[in-house]
Amino acid sequence: QGILERLDAGEIVIGDGGFVFALEKRGYVKAGPWTPEATVEHPQAVRQLHREFLRAGSNVLQTFTFYASEDKLENRGNYVAEKLSSQKVNEAACDIAREVAAEGDALVAGGVSQTPSYLSCKDKAEVKAVFRKQLDIFMKKNVDFLIAEYFEHVEEAVWAVEVLKESGKPVAATMCIGPEGDMHGIPPGQCAVQLVKAGASIVGVNCHFDPDTSLETVKLMKEGLQAAKLKAHLMSQPLAFHTPDCGKQGFIDLPEFPFALEPRIVSRWDIQNYARKAYDLGIRYIGGCCGFEPYHIRAIAEELAPERGFLPEASEKHGSWGNSLSMHTKPWVRARARKEYWENLKPASGRPYCPSMSKPDGWGVTKGARELMQQKEATSEQQLKELFQKQK
Amino acid sequence: QGILERLDAGEIVIGDGGFVFALEKRGYVKAGPWTPEATVEHPQAVRQLHREFLRAGSNVLQTFTFYASEDKLENRGNYVAEKLSSQKVNEAACDIAREVAAEGDALVAGGVSQTPSYLSCKDKAEVKAVFRKQLDIFMKKNVDFLIAEYFEHVEEAVWAVEVLKESGKPVAATMCIGPEGDMHGIPPGQCAVQLVKAGASIVGVNCHFDPDTSLETVKLMKEGLQAAKLKAHLMSQPLAFHTPDCGKQGFIDLPEFPFALEPRIVSRWDIQNYARKAYDLGIRYIGGCCGFEPYHIRAIAEELAPERGFLPEASEKHGSWGNSLSMHTKPWVRARARKEYWENLKPASGRPYCPSMSKPDGWGVTKGARELMQQKEATSEQQLKELFQKQK
Amino acid sequence: QGILERLDAGEIVIGDGGFVFALEKRGYVKAGPWTPEATVEHPQAVRQLHREFLRAGSNVLQTFTFYASEDKLENRGNYVAEKLSSQKVNEAACDIAREVAAEGDALVAGGVSQTPSYLSCKDKAEVKAVFRKQLDIFMKKNVDFLIAEYFEHVEEAVWAVEVLKESGKPVAATMCIGPEGDMHGIPPGQCAVQLVKAGASIVGVNCHFDPDTSLETVKLMKEGLQAAKLKAHLMSQPLAFHTPDCGKQGFIDLPEFPFALEPRIVSRWDIQNYARKAYDLGIRYIGGCCGFEPYHIRAIAEELAPERGFLPEASEKHGSWGNSLSMHTKPWVRARARKEYWENLKPASGRPYCPSMSKPDGWGVTKGARELMQQKEATSEQQLKELFQKQK
Amino acid sequence: QGILERLDAGEIVIGDGGFVFALEKRGYVKAGPWTPEATVEHPQAVRQLHREFLRAGSNVLQTFTFYASEDKLENRGNYVAEKLSSQKVNEAACDIAREVAAEGDALVAGGVSQTPSYLSCKDKAEVKAVFRKQLDIFMKKNVDFLIAEYFEHVEEAVWAVEVLKESGKPVAATMCIGPEGDMHGIPPGQCAVQLVKAGASIVGVNCHFDPDTSLETVKLMKEGLQAAKLKAHLMSQPLAFHTPDCGKQGFIDLPEFPFALEPRIVSRWDIQNYARKAYDLGIRYIGGCCGFEPYHIRAIAEELAPERGFLPEASEKHGSWGNSLSMHTKPWVRARARKEYWENLKPASGRPYCPSMSKPDGWGVTKGARELMQQKEATSEQQLKELFQKQK
Repeated sequence: QGILERLDAGEIVIGDGGFVFALEKRGYVKAGPWTPEATVEHPQAVRQLHREFLRAGSNVLQTFTFYASEDKLENRGNYVAEKLSSQKVNEAACDIAREVAAEGDALVAGGVSQTPSYLSCKDKAEVKAVFRKQLDIFMKKNVDFLIAEYFEHVEEAVWAVEVLKESGKPVAATMCIGPEGDMHGIPPGQCAVQLVKAGASIVGVNCHFDPDTSLETVKLMKEGLQAAKLKAHLMSQPLAFHTPDCGKQGFIDLPEFPFALEPRIVSRWDIQNYARKAYDLGIRYIGGCCGFEPYHIRAIAEELAPERGFLPEASEKHGSWGNSLSMHTKPWVRARARKEYWENLKPASGRPYCPSMSKPDGWGVTKGARELMQQKEATSEQQLKELFQKQK
Repeated sequence: QGILERLDAGEIVIGDGGFVFALEKRGYVKAGPWTPEATVEHPQAVRQLHREFLRAGSNVLQTFTFYASEDKLENRGNYVAEKLSSQKVNEAACDIAREVAAEGDALVAGGVSQTPSYLSCKDKAEVKAVFRKQLDIFMKKNVDFLIAEYFEHVEEAVWAVEVLKESGKPVAATMCIGPEGDMHGIPPGQCAVQLVKAGASIVGVNCHFDPDTSLETVKLMKEGLQAAKLKAHLMSQPLAFHTPDCGKQGFIDLPEFPFALEPRIVSRWDIQNYARKAYDLGIRYIGGCCGFEPYHIRAIAEELAPERGFLPEASEKHGSWGNSLSMHTKPWVRARARKEYWENLKPASGRPYCPSMSKPDGWGVTKGARELMQQKEATSEQQLKELFQKQK
Repeated sequence: QGILERLDAGEIVIGDGGFVFALEKRGYVKAGPWTPEATVEHPQAVRQLHREFLRAGSNVLQTFTFYASEDKLENRGNYVAEKLSSQKVNEAACDIAREVAAEGDALVAGGVSQTPSYLSCKDKAEVKAVFRKQLDIFMKKNVDFLIAEYFEHVEEAVWAVEVLKESGKPVAATMCIGPEGDMHGIPPGQCAVQLVKAGASIVGVNCHFDPDTSLETVKLMKEGLQAAKLKAHLMSQPLAFHTPDCGKQGFIDLPEFPFALEPRIVSRWDIQNYARKAYDLGIRYIGGCCGFEPYHIRAIAEELAPERGFLPEASEKHGSWGNSLSMHTKPWVRARARKEYWENLKPASGRPYCPSMSKPDGWGVTKGARELMQQKEATSEQQLKELFQKQK
Repeated sequence: QGILERLDAGEIVIGDGGFVFALEKRGYVKAGPWTPEATVEHPQAVRQLHREFLRAGSNVLQTFTFYASEDKLENRGNYVAEKLSSQKVNEAACDIAREVAAEGDALVAGGVSQTPSYLSCKDKAEVKAVFRKQLDIFMKKNVDFLIAEYFEHVEEAVWAVEVLKESGKPVAATMCIGPEGDMHGIPPGQCAVQLVKAGASIVGVNCHFDPDTSLETVKLMKEGLQAAKLKAHLMSQPLAFHTPDCGKQGFIDLPEFPFALEPRIVSRWDIQNYARKAYDLGIRYIGGCCGFEPYHIRAIAEELAPERGFLPEASEKHGSWGNSLSMHTKPWVRARARKEYWENLKPASGRPYCPSMSKPDGWGVTKGARELMQQKEATSEQQLKELFQKQK
């Protein structure tokens, strides 16, 4: 059954977690460029991560094609061996995802994300051409459906959806925005309306914000759709990092991004809480993004097991709510084998010299400078440097 | 070249990270029992993790035989399919480690750890018999050297070393103790002396405490050896969690163990700091234990690259000290592409409702109860429950 | 010169700090009732606190008549010796304030605050009668102007202003509300408009929220007045506690209120920051409320000394920005004798087992229960107890 | 009855709190010099503070003669009007304390503290002469007993005790040291022994460390005396600041000293806890130092009321364990009117951008530089500056 059949039937669909962060920790993706050449260079590492998510309960395996548009890979060319053409990277991603999906009951989704072409002000036709190249591969490899994800500007997201819709396959669209809306200030509700009007059957958010903030954003999208009398399925794939202190642009601006986010990593209990709240909000496509490891996805599947009627395979190695501790020799560890314990625990950071929140960088940037940058008028290195100096 | 030839020649040997925590997050190990049946059930997952550590710079691959003694696996029998005999698990572990080691320049170390037999007061002969069964397999599979690790009582560790020494292969021995010493109160210096006298060529600590605390303990071991005019190589494989608030028994007693330790996870920069301090203390076998992911091991290799003259393979996907951010479009993110930035950053937890330190559980246990348990006299469930009630 | 002459001339007028908290710490006011019988019982203690504020720079001494309405004092009768009639308490308060004001250049302001009569649904005439009794004393004692302060409902505040205006003296009015508005949901801008229309020449906020939050509220009041094309002077007298985690009803609902607020106490540097922001927002009557000690008032006067052209008397015992440390024997303490140091310091709490924020109590109260209480329908003890039980 | 009669009879004697910090906040003492010229300049402010401590339960009023030795006042001459001779300041201090003591049942203690003469290496005779000048005034004014307090070097403290003993009056001696001992490295136990041998009948600690740390130090003193078979009464007057992060020299080295210590201020409940622990340790002279306000002293008296059989006068304005909240209109505030609530509360700081602990300044000072300074060899400004530069 396809994605829409499942969602229309009221099923809960569990997404997968973020590949670039997980594979960065495993040594196969470089932070900064965040490109997926590992599909060609180290396919077994990509395959293994897919398997872990499948085993944890994912019903969808996204092709590892994040930032794999031709313009992006060329742009970051110095990081990628010349022989790794965009085509090879995308094709390998499709093959690996399909291979693993066939080991279980998962769908394969081909994904596109925001492009350098848009950020450097290429026109609609040029940007669409970039998406179309990836789409051609997804069609050739016959993915099950398509996802336009990680867009900061709804305009570009709409263009992506329009291209993906040409395929005739179902299209999902998620933006990496928070409750304040997209980088041009368009509120989440309006973004959702535009995406659905462009052809997306599933809309929501991914990345940039923590679960709680992401759910707030999806709630605004839902309200926007209701006000416009539009129907669409809702989807959320947030960070697995606590980011209550983010500004409009999300975790990129936090001083800890991307190499000191560890203290912010969410626990499995945080994720169970997120899954429940997402479900209660009416979201039925529930997954994760950067920071999500397989055990986080399993936590979604375990929390919603009563609704779904089954546990994921990986739960054979996990006691619900810590009950695998019930045989521990120490009584105080055995006392942790219960739901109330983990639900109420306020975990310590072990870092008494560190604060609990950060001011996002760029916080002090003059409003003008920030706007300039968001309007993409500050394209030259020099201009940006000056703006940055001015605000210090 | 063997482990001792390398260490004797002054080389830095980089260990690997902890398998049970890494594979628990990936869905292949169950917290609580923490047994390694995945070597038989999911060999590709174990193989992949070995590969990642190898790629990150590990010079030693430990067989995934933690808690794989026969008495332990039987004890936890309900978790392990009957067909998974201790022998199969141990043999598969050796085969996988050897296979991956051959892909690079790594040694294979067979490992034994503390046993239920000792904790339930079996006598010396019985406990030694348990170790000997694992040793037989290591000899059959011809591992390069042997490690007795994760011992809370030096007495049991000495027995393990004595058995392993029968093989004629080099033996390393690490205890999961802190500066207060083993569970019977024997200080680290004396533990080291006993282990070396029993035949260990390499001594140190693993698990239970964070890098800083572990280095303190190794320092005490070093001083003990010097005072006794004994020579041995030093080794450290600490947790990748900040645990300044641990009591004598380490992170097991922290309320967050084992399912809410996320905010305590150390960053790569913490590990670079650890590697440098370990090196300065004279430790030359430097690795990790629970919580260590491949990128943490890479951080050791990167920090000590000047001394070693080379970077690990995985550094092709990592800019030293964040320099892969130097092309970022935002000037304030580019500003993070330098050592001073990451060295001085105090990362926020994103958890304003949580404290920075915890009181270890069992903190309020009456001294008598604690001692009883440590003396292994409180063997029955009922007795332990009463002790626990009494202290509440 | 009177208060309006000063403000109309563009002068900065510095208020005083909160008496009930300061005198509670000194042993003369009881937390809970918070009534000012100390004016009769221990006049020298009240006099001394007035003197300290005068010396610190206060241009206004408020009579210590907080919660001194007849209905309140009778209500809390068990705490107050019978002989301490409301009249005696109010008269003594006026005499003491006048005596100290004469030692310097300060005005005396008679103050009224919210009444039990209003909370128990007495009608307008009855509530006004209560205010009128206090006003009679203020007129007899000839205070310089009048303040209606600490009102949670703008309706009651308007009644108070109407009564006070009968005197012909200038009237200031402050509410203990945050940006969400009064307890019936009337936003700050509308509150300000109603108060000015009722006759207040000065409007603003006092108590319940920290400086930053209070300034946000005054900003909304300012915008409300501008939109309504009304003119009034602005005033702020916030808490000297950090309360970023407050809900609508302010610090009363924080779990730490009122006996464990210490870690929230603001520093003198926080207050200098507040004074500057208040000034920049156009506020010219700048003082404090609960938690403000004389040194906090001095910090306002020191921050605004460049604008005012003089320092308060108490600055003879204070080096600007820590310069009294410039002779310290330790070089690292001398290094603290500069503005940049104190401006940038992030002070530690010394409490690693405590969080940085709290969830306000009553957080989980059902909306219905909360509203019931706010609608003053839950008047009986029994009813409240049941509501509380229901929400647990 | 005199101090020794009371202590010998097993009475609990409650000390007073720190004057320099309390009067700094009130505007009468300058941080940095910390000298007590207020006894002449603003006697009513000093008198009022004495009264508050008396009312809160103090059985001893210390003359406000801290840092009032002639050499200190001359040294800090620029801060003190010439006419304020050391003699006048000391005499006024005695008169004020005696006047207030007569209002209740308190003893007057004349106090001396460490001198610049000692720090600049004057010899024993010179240093003793300084103490003797203050003693002459105490004898003329007939104080009840004498305290040598705030000594960092036991050598100087012993000289002080020897001088004070010449009077024939009982002598108490407290040092501002922690468990690591005095600035020359003499451990607390030995310090206590030397002080008792010099003639002190009461020994203990004051200032520089928080209650918990101070009790640890007194415990070491107690053990030292027991080992030496000496008898003395024990005394503690710690800070009212949490300082778990102090180094050897206490809170002076904390970055927050002295102008941003607010988040560290202890609550009344912390003090009740301290009083109980002090009592259980056998300390019978229990008071406070910097940071202690009258309500902290009252908390000692309230905690030990069961043992003493009475409450202090100021308790008429305080409900035990928050019971004055039992009439509050909000049920969740009423729920705070009980001991368990306040005992278990972990108070939030309201400062999510701040850490919970600090590294003391001078932390990185080379051991050599620190020792130089401690050896008093770095007397010139220039020398200190160079040392400081060297360590940066």
